Amino acid sequence: METVLTVIAEFDRFGLDRRREPVISFGGGVLLDLVGVATSMYRRGVPHVRVPTTLLGQVDAAIGAKTGINHGAHKNRLGSFQQPAGVLLDRRFLASLDERHLRNGMAEIVKLAVVRDERLFELLEEHGELLIEERFQGSSPTGERVARQVLHRSVQGMLAELEPNLWERELDRLVDFGHSVGPALEMRADGELLHGETVAIDIALFTTVAASRGVLDDKAGRRILELLHRLALPTDHHLLDGDLLRRAMTDTVRHRDGRQRLPVPVGIGAATFLNDVSDEELRSALRHRRREAVPT
Amino acid sequence: METVLTVIAEFDRFGLDRRREPVISFGGGVLLDLVGVATSMYRRGVPHVRVPTTLLGQVDAAIGAKTGINHGAHKNRLGSFQQPAGVLLDRRFLASLDERHLRNGMAEIVKLAVVRDERLFELLEEHGELLIEERFQGSSPTGERVARQVLHRSVQGMLAELEPNLWERELDRLVDFGHSVGPALEMRADGELLHGETVAIDIALFTTVAASRGVLDDKAGRRILELLHRLALPTDHHLLDGDLLRRAMTDTVRHRDGRQRLPVPVGIGAATFLNDVSDEELRSALRHRRREAVPT
Repeated sequence: METVLTVIAEFDRFGLDRRREPVISFGGGVLLDLVGVATSMYRRGVPHVRVPTTLLGQVDAAIGAKTGINHGAHKNRLGSFQQPAGVLLDRRFLASLDERHLRNGMAEIVKLAVVRDERLFELLEEHGELLIEERFQGSSPTGERVARQVLHRSVQGMLAELEPNLWERELDRLVDFGHSVGPALEMRADGELLHGETVAIDIALFTTVAASRGVLDDKAGRRILELLHRLALPTDHHLLDGDLLRRAMTDTVRHRDGRQRLPVPVGIGAATFLNDVSDEELRSALRHRRREAVPT
Repeated sequence: METVLTVIAEFDRFGLDRRREPVISFGGGVLLDLVGVATSMYRRGVPHVRVPTTLLGQVDAAIGAKTGINHGAHKNRLGSFQQPAGVLLDRRFLASLDERHLRNGMAEIVKLAVVRDERLFELLEEHGELLIEERFQGSSPTGERVARQVLHRSVQGMLAELEPNLWERELDRLVDFGHSVGPALEMRADGELLHGETVAIDIALFTTVAASRGVLDDKAGRRILELLHRLALPTDHHLLDGDLLRRAMTDTVRHRDGRQRLPVPVGIGAATFLNDVSDEELRSALRHRRREAVPT
């Protein structure tokens, strides 16, 4: 909150009008979210144009109406729904992005592919590494074609999920896949893990839950985990333990109004919601993951 | 903002769910606004039921979608538009309200009467003192009838003004009458003046501007000032000077997106907007008010 108030002090210093001077922010998801909170509060809302410069920003944080800042020990505990005045997506920003942040953004694309877009999943299987290598700049004809397709499908897929439920009246949300225990891990890791990395770990865990239950066949489960490995995304972390899982689920259930509403894949490009996953089932999935984990 | 964060810490301690547990707040306008800001930020918005216990709360602060807190030297600089889950209006709360706070709420009723409701204005002229004496509790048959009428007309009038423009896309707002230089005076007076008292002073000033220009006839202008006097509301304050007027207008013009949009009465129950009021015209109106001021 202190950083939001610093941004607001700059609005005061600049002498910002109410509607006719949009604030334009350039940066990654954290910065866009932070300026989003500031602009949604200042004068009860001043217009905000988001210019994401990271892959995660371009496919996730800048899309939709949400803003948020961490508060206390909680991820995005404070924030708003504020429709941006505009969002500028330009993949040339990604040319200077480091590899870890590219992989970080890839995790959100994997998430979307798993729950709703089999073709996107296949594109990542076939060309994910090329996209990272070329930083989405289309250095080769294949890279150019696939970069366009992947970014287009990601953004359109996010919009298709968010638009009918922009204010989240409905709390069963497919895009929450990867965000059930991930946020608690992210806060616990305190900067050691990027957001997308926790998404990947969460995807791996709930893919294992789905496979163990038999709602997802083993082959599809293996394809999801193999894709995460191929993109060099983590599927486990030493801070993830039974205690963190339990506390994460308590918080998630509270945020989802008393039900688990856990999105899990039932195939590649399809998902369902579980509401009866026990602590023991989660710990068992975690042990299973740990036995299979590829050392990183 | 510190107080908002204190309220938010209590939400965390309580373990507030997202949608199914509305926060219910009891209090005056400041408290409702403060809890409104907290509930609009927490989890990007949790439901809020407002129970105003002051007259100003019941006819103004609890009506509509606005929340706000002062920040820096600015009135309501931070806030949100958040529709409450419900508003409970019960005039029995007013039985224990002190006289100054009753008069304070009366100022917002006068405002509404001047810009849109001649009948309400007449009721205040005829029975305003009785209402304050009886604290709106209807101790006499006339008091009962008028209390109902006045509260009903006030709330319905506010709703009629706010509903078509709930998000303030339109910045020409009649309900801003009394709120053009008042907010700056309120911040400058730092607790010495209640909100409604600054509204009354602002009404007096801009009534004088309108009468000086001839857009309001002298008789109507006198009726407005006499009503304020009869309700023992202030029409001037020693901290109001040329410098404060100038700075107040700069801030107001910024908040109204580059135009003055000053609501001024053109009769009892009718108003227009001025956009070309000079500093000198305001200072002249202030001098005029000061010459006429009834010593308080």
